[in-house]
Amino acid sequence: MLEKEELTFVESRLSFWGKLSDAEKNILENNISKVTYSKGSNIHSADSKCLGVLLVQHGALRVYILSEDGREVTLYRLSSGDICVLSASCILNSITFDVHIDAEDDTEAFLLNISAFSKLSNQNVYVENFSYKNTVERFSDVMWAMEQILFMRFDKRLAIFLLDEMAKTNSSKISLTQEQIAKYIGSAREVVSRMLKIFQSQGILEQSRGLIHVIDKEKLKELL
Amino acid sequence: MLEKEELTFVESRLSFWGKLSDAEKNILENNISKVTYSKGSNIHSADSKCLGVLLVQHGALRVYILSEDGREVTLYRLSSGDICVLSASCILNSITFDVHIDAEDDTEAFLLNISAFSKLSNQNVYVENFSYKNTVERFSDVMWAMEQILFMRFDKRLAIFLLDEMAKTNSSKISLTQEQIAKYIGSAREVVSRMLKIFQSQGILEQSRGLIHVIDKEKLKELL
Repeated sequence: MLEKEELTFVESRLSFWGKLSDAEKNILENNISKVTYSKGSNIHSADSKCLGVLLVQHGALRVYILSEDGREVTLYRLSSGDICVLSASCILNSITFDVHIDAEDDTEAFLLNISAFSKLSNQNVYVENFSYKNTVERFSDVMWAMEQILFMRFDKRLAIFLLDEMAKTNSSKISLTQEQIAKYIGSAREVVSRMLKIFQSQGILEQSRGLIHVIDKEKLKELL
Repeated sequence: MLEKEELTFVESRLSFWGKLSDAEKNILENNISKVTYSKGSNIHSADSKCLGVLLVQHGALRVYILSEDGREVTLYRLSSGDICVLSASCILNSITFDVHIDAEDDTEAFLLNISAFSKLSNQNVYVENFSYKNTVERFSDVMWAMEQILFMRFDKRLAIFLLDEMAKTNSSKISLTQEQIAKYIGSAREVVSRMLKIFQSQGILEQSRGLIHVIDKEKLKELL
């Protein structure tokens, strides 16, 4: 059982709470537990069995697809307060694709196990509706990612990514390899490498092993 | 009002029908009408006002996204019996992206107008749930399209497309320009042109203006 304060957080994020019967509330409370994932660990993949619904308390999850030859494309990220339904997609028949989910930081989350979620979703239309609605919100995220990948000029995409990273870490130094950046923005290392060289020649940034130092943020912003 | 037979078809496709009150059934019956679209016409776009929910009776719709510079990427197609909710996305807050919808053939459909759909969706959770569930099914289609575009070898993608077209028209002759094929599979005309030339040199097909004649279907299948 969760502590009272934790339960309050969970209830506040599950908009169907008020539509549950007392018995259903009991099922939920007895089947939700705290889980922790260390940075970099895989939480869900096409082969893994169905986990359940995750509610992120602290940390960050990254949801992505993986090609046969190992290329990754990031679909979206989840952070504190976000709910992950795709880790329970096995019981939602309308979802016929598989995603991978990694912890991008050390992450603490609440897990509603799959059998309890299945039971609640089957017997209460508000729970099912919550799941589908949440998935549709993620659909919107995926459409955004897809438009970025398919349509946006690559210099603009890379500039947005670098500015986001700077804002996230509140620093002009970005500790990521070209390989990692390529993975995060759904591109190839060679393409990232080429564009970073162009940015370097324009005096926007300097590169050293695994580190990018943005020296002219304004010039980077002009690319947007 | 629709004819009895038409109404039976509509009811059979709207799985929430049994969950409607008599008053709600009346709202639905009084606000559904027959619409026709001629081949090639645009039904919905980012600028157009919100249409409502469409149920395809005959014909085919194509749903796609459009870049600023006019590139199209097909997300999925809808045919007889399929329901189109994205043409009513304005009232579903979780959907924050815009799609374009064209009639790919002469199409007859039933249209539930947006105000009736909005009313029903707001007051009956089964209607809302139906909309979200339908959208999640389309999410699965989009993920499939996205994986095709991002991950699949281009020769395989083009082979699948040509085989699909042959199956659809039950003919070895495909009356499409390279431009049209590029549009349908989310690629560029030049890329399609190059691959068709390769297929031609391998004795798989012959090309003439706006027509592709597949002469070795088995060889094409070997690419899958």
